[in-house]
Amino acid sequence: MSYSMPELIRTKRDGGELTADELRWMIAEYTADRIPDYQLSAFLMAVMFRGMSGNELAAWTDAMLHSGDVLDLSATDMPKVDKHSTGGVGDKISIPLAPLVVACGVAVPMMSGRGLGHTGGTLDKLETIPGFRTRLDPDEFARQLDAIGLVLGGQSETLVPADRRIYALRDASGTVPSIPLISSSIMSKKLAEDLDGLVLDVKIGSGAFMKDIASGTELARTMVGIGASHDTPVVGLLTDMDQPLGREVGNANEMVESIATLRGEGPADVTELTMRLGEEMLILAGVATDATDARVRLEAAVSSGAGLDVFARVIEAQGGDPRVLDDRSLLPVAANRHVVVADRAGFVERCDALSVGRAAVRLGAGRQAKEDDIDPAVGITVHAKVGDTVESGTPLATVRYNTDDQLASCLGVLETAWDLTDEPQEPQPLILGEVR
Amino acid sequence: MSYSMPELIRTKRDGGELTADELRWMIAEYTADRIPDYQLSAFLMAVMFRGMSGNELAAWTDAMLHSGDVLDLSATDMPKVDKHSTGGVGDKISIPLAPLVVACGVAVPMMSGRGLGHTGGTLDKLETIPGFRTRLDPDEFARQLDAIGLVLGGQSETLVPADRRIYALRDASGTVPSIPLISSSIMSKKLAEDLDGLVLDVKIGSGAFMKDIASGTELARTMVGIGASHDTPVVGLLTDMDQPLGREVGNANEMVESIATLRGEGPADVTELTMRLGEEMLILAGVATDATDARVRLEAAVSSGAGLDVFARVIEAQGGDPRVLDDRSLLPVAANRHVVVADRAGFVERCDALSVGRAAVRLGAGRQAKEDDIDPAVGITVHAKVGDTVESGTPLATVRYNTDDQLASCLGVLETAWDLTDEPQEPQPLILGEVR
Repeated sequence: MSYSMPELIRTKRDGGELTADELRWMIAEYTADRIPDYQLSAFLMAVMFRGMSGNELAAWTDAMLHSGDVLDLSATDMPKVDKHSTGGVGDKISIPLAPLVVACGVAVPMMSGRGLGHTGGTLDKLETIPGFRTRLDPDEFARQLDAIGLVLGGQSETLVPADRRIYALRDASGTVPSIPLISSSIMSKKLAEDLDGLVLDVKIGSGAFMKDIASGTELARTMVGIGASHDTPVVGLLTDMDQPLGREVGNANEMVESIATLRGEGPADVTELTMRLGEEMLILAGVATDATDARVRLEAAVSSGAGLDVFARVIEAQGGDPRVLDDRSLLPVAANRHVVVADRAGFVERCDALSVGRAAVRLGAGRQAKEDDIDPAVGITVHAKVGDTVESGTPLATVRYNTDDQLASCLGVLETAWDLTDEPQEPQPLILGEVR
Repeated sequence: MSYSMPELIRTKRDGGELTADELRWMIAEYTADRIPDYQLSAFLMAVMFRGMSGNELAAWTDAMLHSGDVLDLSATDMPKVDKHSTGGVGDKISIPLAPLVVACGVAVPMMSGRGLGHTGGTLDKLETIPGFRTRLDPDEFARQLDAIGLVLGGQSETLVPADRRIYALRDASGTVPSIPLISSSIMSKKLAEDLDGLVLDVKIGSGAFMKDIASGTELARTMVGIGASHDTPVVGLLTDMDQPLGREVGNANEMVESIATLRGEGPADVTELTMRLGEEMLILAGVATDATDARVRLEAAVSSGAGLDVFARVIEAQGGDPRVLDDRSLLPVAANRHVVVADRAGFVERCDALSVGRAAVRLGAGRQAKEDDIDPAVGITVHAKVGDTVESGTPLATVRYNTDDQLASCLGVLETAWDLTDEPQEPQPLILGEVR
């Protein structure tokens, strides 16, 4: 069946609903270079204004998913569950979470991304381990998953090529912030991992893409709906990203904090979010009956060292040096240090994730553009978070930097991150809601 | 000054206003192939939803206007006024109107278009005169205007190239029906004619692009506003296009009706609209003090034969055979004839312009696509219009056709054009409003 692309654009523009066949045709023709970019970009802009129905989204995501290879991970006997975070500042949760879940008997075929703008990326953090490779071909990916139950890799080139092309077009044509387009992009990639279940960590707040609970809830509901249309159970947690997660923001320093969390020595918020997401993953996988049961299993994986052991095996399998787990001096760290202190006594009312994230980019820890390199050794340690009490002169943050210019540029933003007040402040709640 | 196109797209998408410099940059860069089609089409789709402010439209139109040559018609002493119609069925008004206005001392540098879809085009009708050329180079255009005061040509390739490119992109990307984009497209071409004034005939109804008075008024107001920002007075009349204009729909048959109108023997609606538009043109040109004065001059140009004489000189100058003015057998006419009759007695409640226009296309009188050829000899003569009384068997229309297949296809639509009722019907009003 063949359709007229201008007619499909007009239908969407005027608020009509496209059929599954029409949307499948569009993705297939675009991927085969038979629809020009200028028609798809106009269509995507119409979607920005008109949205997509549940039926449209199911067909669109399914067509993207089938635009390339779909992983066949059937050799793995364990149930396969993954986690996706919409991205934030200091969000290193994947690194402690995945090994702990695997230690509890669940396979995690995790494909992560790189940092962009003020948000960090799991691949950049993993690559601070000397020798660690994140590019694995599909066969290696499947074999390692079968052997260890865990792969921590990048997105394969052959998976969901339509998403890569459409994302580049959206980036260049002002059509990124659309809930249906974001949801279908995420879900097509995750569903291509051949999963039995998926847990979403939808970040809300200044450092997140979604600024409020309403839009975060809509995004989570949309993705849960796409999962349902694909018979894949999806659970979404809405979690705080008004302030950075944990104490460390950067790359190697976030790896140090991740390892500490695997040892049971991580900050309270990182540990709690790891546990909450892990509970949902174990329940979806069917290896725990409820949250209490799941928490017991996850805590045992920490205290027995089983999680750390899974991570050691993954590091070794992917060419890295597992001695980093015991010797943090094997991870890069910038030589220079600068401490930002409170200029008054008071209570921390705000520790702004966006400002800290931007400050880290200026330091070289993140990217402005996809092509940029990052500096794994620089980073920011956040000492005071919402609810904390400080005196005048109390350290708010320690900056590890490599050049004076980068430090000066970083401080210009970092020093605006905190608001201090005379009124005692409640700590910021971490879990803001859930969608199932 | 250089700008980021994705940023300008996002600004428009989010409801912001672009500066004149930003819009001029966009048109210049696009025309120079430094902005890809996929960015402009996304921008145009955002304009579909967000519109353009008066300041944006003035800058956008001005930038389009200056994307190529602008006519220099300063050698012509007479004031220069043109008319533009938004297009309809049986709309041959330009052909009698322009010579009459010129006979009253106004120069008319008219550039017309071809028919597309159910609407006819002046160029197609002019070319039914044996030998008549509508392609004139800019020098010839200026010389003829100076000598005769009238040119009836096509749009020059070198005028407003940005509009040609943007229109093709809009056509392919579902971004045609936007009042700011339509207005700027029309006005950039008309303002490039170096005019002292412009009269718009904004068609309203089933056979027109604008289906109701509200949207027609908005279109007219928008174009009057663009004219004001360019110091060119513009007057818009809103006129009926629920039923075809005049009796003839086609090409050569419309030329016959146009010549009859120039002789004072045209149908009442064609004659009245010609006079009303002519009045506005004479007043804008400053050669008449008011509508009554203008009407006297125009009627004199009919009765003296001065209008017909101007048309004869133009036909001769553009290579055509002026004997067509006296001998209609020199115009092509299809050999076969079919009469559609009323199947009951009653009053005509509806004579649908869109159906008659579509029927004419099926006959070969119009184009589905720009590349199509038209058959100048076929056409429809409409015998019964709204308010007329018919008996069972009274002819509603006569079809002149060349093939039986085309006739059958034509009748499938044409026979649905009329509604007859037992209640007497008022004639349809011709002039629905005006905007100045």
